[in-house]
Amino acid sequence: MILRMPSRHLVILVVVALVAVERLFGAGQEPAGQTPGTLVIAGGTVITMDAGRRVLSPGAVATSGPDIVAIGPPDEIARAYPQARTIHAAGRVVLPGLINTHTHAPMVMYRGLADDLALKDWLEQYIFPAEAKTVAPAFVRTGTRLAALEMIKSGTTTFADMYYFEEEIARVTRRAGLRGVLGETIIGFPSPDAKTPAEALQRAAAFIKEFSGDSLITPAVAPHSMYLLEKEALLAARDLAIGNRVPLLIHLAETEGEVETSRRKHHASPVQFLESIGFWAPTTIAAHGVWVDDDDIATLAGRDVGVSHNPESNMKLASGTAPVPRYLAAGVAVGLGTDGAASNNDLDMFEAMRQAAFVHKLVSRDPRAMPAAAALEMATIGGARVLGMAGRIGSLEPGKRADLIVVRMDAVRQTPLYDPISHLVYVTRGDDVETTVVNGRVLMEGRRVTTLDEPAVLKEAQEMAEEVRKAVRR
Amino acid sequence: MILRMPSRHLVILVVVALVAVERLFGAGQEPAGQTPGTLVIAGGTVITMDAGRRVLSPGAVATSGPDIVAIGPPDEIARAYPQARTIHAAGRVVLPGLINTHTHAPMVMYRGLADDLALKDWLEQYIFPAEAKTVAPAFVRTGTRLAALEMIKSGTTTFADMYYFEEEIARVTRRAGLRGVLGETIIGFPSPDAKTPAEALQRAAAFIKEFSGDSLITPAVAPHSMYLLEKEALLAARDLAIGNRVPLLIHLAETEGEVETSRRKHHASPVQFLESIGFWAPTTIAAHGVWVDDDDIATLAGRDVGVSHNPESNMKLASGTAPVPRYLAAGVAVGLGTDGAASNNDLDMFEAMRQAAFVHKLVSRDPRAMPAAAALEMATIGGARVLGMAGRIGSLEPGKRADLIVVRMDAVRQTPLYDPISHLVYVTRGDDVETTVVNGRVLMEGRRVTTLDEPAVLKEAQEMAEEVRKAVRR
Repeated sequence: MILRMPSRHLVILVVVALVAVERLFGAGQEPAGQTPGTLVIAGGTVITMDAGRRVLSPGAVATSGPDIVAIGPPDEIARAYPQARTIHAAGRVVLPGLINTHTHAPMVMYRGLADDLALKDWLEQYIFPAEAKTVAPAFVRTGTRLAALEMIKSGTTTFADMYYFEEEIARVTRRAGLRGVLGETIIGFPSPDAKTPAEALQRAAAFIKEFSGDSLITPAVAPHSMYLLEKEALLAARDLAIGNRVPLLIHLAETEGEVETSRRKHHASPVQFLESIGFWAPTTIAAHGVWVDDDDIATLAGRDVGVSHNPESNMKLASGTAPVPRYLAAGVAVGLGTDGAASNNDLDMFEAMRQAAFVHKLVSRDPRAMPAAAALEMATIGGARVLGMAGRIGSLEPGKRADLIVVRMDAVRQTPLYDPISHLVYVTRGDDVETTVVNGRVLMEGRRVTTLDEPAVLKEAQEMAEEVRKAVRR
Repeated sequence: MILRMPSRHLVILVVVALVAVERLFGAGQEPAGQTPGTLVIAGGTVITMDAGRRVLSPGAVATSGPDIVAIGPPDEIARAYPQARTIHAAGRVVLPGLINTHTHAPMVMYRGLADDLALKDWLEQYIFPAEAKTVAPAFVRTGTRLAALEMIKSGTTTFADMYYFEEEIARVTRRAGLRGVLGETIIGFPSPDAKTPAEALQRAAAFIKEFSGDSLITPAVAPHSMYLLEKEALLAARDLAIGNRVPLLIHLAETEGEVETSRRKHHASPVQFLESIGFWAPTTIAAHGVWVDDDDIATLAGRDVGVSHNPESNMKLASGTAPVPRYLAAGVAVGLGTDGAASNNDLDMFEAMRQAAFVHKLVSRDPRAMPAAAALEMATIGGARVLGMAGRIGSLEPGKRADLIVVRMDAVRQTPLYDPISHLVYVTRGDDVETTVVNGRVLMEGRRVTTLDEPAVLKEAQEMAEEVRKAVRR
């Protein structure tokens, strides 16, 4: 489109737009990419989630640039890093930042738009029409800013995502300072950003190139599912992932209907169909994994496929319950995810932990089935394993990236305190997170987010919601 | 015990004690029992939960003394009550105070003490020893103050309770300004407050007498369960309830083990055994009701027994899931409860709503099984029906008591807002409650509780927790 506007007006417009964008990202924060200095988080109970599951109470964590450089008693760390900026965490719990292994960030724009419907009605009457009419780069940016704000405020430091215009999600994520494994979606029908799987694969290739080597963004390929893609597109997505050494993300065995469709069409379960075509990449992340049998679990274990368990979404959509204790027994890496906020309806990983601890007790009829520590493990080091990043994140250890959170433990509902791990899972909420650090950079301190302008992000989202309302009005 | 202390020291001690008690209950609040003046809650979305499920947006509620006197458009109410003190609720949601139909308030002192154990180990190694060594009047007062603080801060205005030293719970509850249906426990073994069921029944009779006619406290009788009491004690408890026209509270069909025991001993399910002995009173509140068949449901419906559904506790202890949709279809009144905080681990009724909405979708494999509105109904007017108080509380209507809460709706996780009822159930937490009013009295405004001194209550609980730690140390 050629603009016929007088150039003076155009200049003013551009300036206004730039100022608006600057506002959304907050004032006074350090620029994205700047190397953070030395930081010490001192005092508090440090839950490391390292191999020995060491808990230091009190403990301290020292970071330098993007890395953790030391963990130890507070006085020792203070002596070793006398010049460091210090965040005091006495009475708090310090733990690895939470890892959300499956979401669709911009779908926060659809949270609560429609609930409690049969899956078909929910999708066909609300989600698909809303997506067809609203998903565009500006929408994705607005939604991702809102999602990033929610994640930073609730202690998520890394998230895995599958959506459209993933390059927009990546740009916003990088600027917000979060770590992301972000997969451009390949899907078997015309989507908002690609008419065909081939076009989507081209977009994915360009996206991978743009973010190759980024310190925060791991680009990825996200073929939607085995039921919305043909074999050729699934294998092309795999080849793209393997050729570029990036993760491969897919929805897998989410509903019983998916299994029925697969058996009818391929005479195999979804897992066995993917096995038969040689779908797997070195890092494959399967979201949901609800409807699997022992053979499927053995296959996923043998192929080192990680599973993202999404207990809230699976309950809300009545999909079922992934057999997590059996996955863990078979050696499958399992992380937790929230799924998109349209089916949850938030991105709070504390709720995901609580729900995981609850639901496996219920379905196994054994209160020992999923202890609090196991839920916390899935939300931290387990999630890191799923994403193929256990060498870099998921626990507090010298040499790993400085992704950590400080959580308050003094609410009425957290009193008294006998066991911090029990409290993290059973009575703590995202709102209790006080400080969020990613890659050594402080994204939130004292509940104030430094990389996004909260009021501006909320206002922008409220305005965008008007478009969503129009899209589903009948 | 005779005190040999010099009288001067004794006087000082008494003064110090009185000051300490005063401190726990906060300074500057209106004395308990004082008639509140006229109050208007203006602006905001008023969700009445009346028979027509009227929602006024914006709306206003006027109260006079303990009663709601008018509900209507804000300008109309402002004209009618120009002198009233006004609480502004623009952008908020105003709804009936939440009703917790089953808890054991002082057990907040055991939250997170032990989790994720087989029921027998949890009870025998932790809860029973802790109760045997710590439950005493001072412990019950401390625990109830902590529980009352948590309930006020999370929007619960009425709770039903079963514990020991229930008169202490009642005194603290009245002073904190909450409404309670409080049942003195009758149990078949020596308990902290009674050696025998007969002694417990005497205590219950005295308790009922003390609180007869109280505007906030409804005294009740709480025979623990059909498996921990003989027929004679169950019927004596029933007679006490009927003779004094007070509610009868009991745990019923919570675990499969209870049903097996009942069938072995009585050749009948727990419900049919109670039916066979004519146990029911005009207001009977059965907690849990997980393991029931169609005959049991028909019996409960026919006897007007209300069921308290405790989804979180039933999941955490792996008890099972009450067949709530079938209860509702049969016309049984169903409310929500948290159970004691030892098995939850909090008293947040928003979490109870969310869990109810989630778990019934999962177990019925139908996302339509428990819509958000149905969960909200159980937490308000449904709970009022269970307690036999639907004429007084559970909805916002002129003539009912002024028990209401104002809830913020502007958190990041609540943005955007398409449907306030969806948000109340799926993304709201107790911490979002800004104002709590019971019987026309403001118990919390702007998150500041007026009837309890929060720091003093927390300190007292932390000190008491030391006794709990000692009690379970091995």
